[in-house]
Amino acid sequence: MKVVRTIAELREALRPGHPARACESQDHLGQNPDTASRIGMVPTMGALHEGHLSLLQRARAENDLVILSIFVNPTQFSEASDLDAYPRQEAQDAALAESAGVDVIFAPSAAEMYPAGFATTVSVSGAITETLEGAGRGSSHFDGVATVVAKLLLAALPHRAYFGQKDAQQLRVVQRMVADLGIPTEIVSCATSRDADGLARSSRNVRLSETDRQRALVIPRALAAVSAAAASGETEVVALRTLAEGILAEGSVDPEYLAFVNPESFAPATTVSGTVLCAIAARVGEVRLIDNELLNPPSLPISKEN
Amino acid sequence: MKVVRTIAELREALRPGHPARACESQDHLGQNPDTASRIGMVPTMGALHEGHLSLLQRARAENDLVILSIFVNPTQFSEASDLDAYPRQEAQDAALAESAGVDVIFAPSAAEMYPAGFATTVSVSGAITETLEGAGRGSSHFDGVATVVAKLLLAALPHRAYFGQKDAQQLRVVQRMVADLGIPTEIVSCATSRDADGLARSSRNVRLSETDRQRALVIPRALAAVSAAAASGETEVVALRTLAEGILAEGSVDPEYLAFVNPESFAPATTVSGTVLCAIAARVGEVRLIDNELLNPPSLPISKEN
Repeated sequence: MKVVRTIAELREALRPGHPARACESQDHLGQNPDTASRIGMVPTMGALHEGHLSLLQRARAENDLVILSIFVNPTQFSEASDLDAYPRQEAQDAALAESAGVDVIFAPSAAEMYPAGFATTVSVSGAITETLEGAGRGSSHFDGVATVVAKLLLAALPHRAYFGQKDAQQLRVVQRMVADLGIPTEIVSCATSRDADGLARSSRNVRLSETDRQRALVIPRALAAVSAAAASGETEVVALRTLAEGILAEGSVDPEYLAFVNPESFAPATTVSGTVLCAIAARVGEVRLIDNELLNPPSLPISKEN
Repeated sequence: MKVVRTIAELREALRPGHPARACESQDHLGQNPDTASRIGMVPTMGALHEGHLSLLQRARAENDLVILSIFVNPTQFSEASDLDAYPRQEAQDAALAESAGVDVIFAPSAAEMYPAGFATTVSVSGAITETLEGAGRGSSHFDGVATVVAKLLLAALPHRAYFGQKDAQQLRVVQRMVADLGIPTEIVSCATSRDADGLARSSRNVRLSETDRQRALVIPRALAAVSAAAASGETEVVALRTLAEGILAEGSVDPEYLAFVNPESFAPATTVSGTVLCAIAARVGEVRLIDNELLNPPSLPISKEN
């Protein structure tokens, strides 16, 4: 397993003949036309947990070369305290990555990603970025996400990149950006990975006290309850909201938002006639958690992705 | 020569194994690993003139496969009348392109480039986009340029793309965007192509009356005079400005701007100690013209690019 710090090194680690290397190493082109290898990429902010490992395992199974990127992207944090508190544990991450069969870790510095004079932003407009996390974390959050993911994908030009459904809105922003710009990467959405008690895996979970962790379990319970109710034929979002609010109250969890939206457009939904995304954000103790479920009416098969 | 209308068709026209085809035709990958071919792209808005032909000839000489894109991009026009008046002559363009050895013309519709739901913008911030053309044409002009060029380059992932120095600010925006996002394409800047009388070639020139065309010649004359003065040792922008204003006045041309800026940052320059870009925009009759020269002090060699 290689650990590389620069885009040039990352491209050097790719097959000769791969267009991501076009500018850097023109002399190599044509010498070894072995470009049939499939490249899978898992972009992360490090602090790897079993959720990340499930993404890496899928990437390993579906590709010839697996790249893990680790970059705590400053431009998507609205609060310096959150950026500072974000866990960093690269040595441990590298050991986990190696055990998961990663070929290349790309762990750039902020100066490598945003050198002096950097002036370009990729933005997605509309409800996808303006509501929920976009409203809660500031409008620049998803600009930061879209820009860094565009740059990471263009650095490696992977055939597939893997994202968790847990960050549903981020996934949708990335899908929209990649489709709109025509980045030739398939965005693979992967089901939310959960601990045995149901809590969605997150790098932030390590900051929960044991008491707060128990309280936080009302979040996946509320989501499971509304999902079951929808699958049983409850179509009214008003009723589903009341159900979820009751369960959250059992843990004294006051959600920042409890939203029912169209999973493509993020426009508010009032009935579960097609698939509806139910998303929750809540601060439990000092830690802000998010989680979601895709709700399907009885007439629709259960989504494979969640 | 092929003429294609969709991104999928364009990618189909590229070599199997080229990553731009990764999503569309995974089954083809590895069957023909002939990816050593160099792809050159010349993005245009059509209405080809000899300036475009010089770009195409250079692309032809330096690459194995040459793509000409023709797309009158609505998002970079601030005035609907200018968009409507922009000349469109695809049959004539295709004949010229074939004579120049173009392999593929990519001529998409606006609906192909911006399908329903399109929501992504690529922006470059700072003086590069806010001054001169950015001030004159509205702040969205260069967002439109950066977004469409990003999308065109990602559609084909060419090794090289060719732009004229005549649109100096556009060239700099594209260079900045491509460097910042890491699009693996070399941006090749090509010297401004001029008619025998010195007028910079532009698709808009056909709309000049004979009288206005004669008046417009003071623009290249003013640029040539300041370039010669700088090369002879005049370093004060105040003096160079007075010289240019005097020549423009001979044609009764009142410039929208006559600017002396750093060619990288577009920050205003007061002395010609290094290379300085002198740029002029002026409306002559109904037609808005732009032109520029790179000025070099006697201590610097003349730039190859202009």
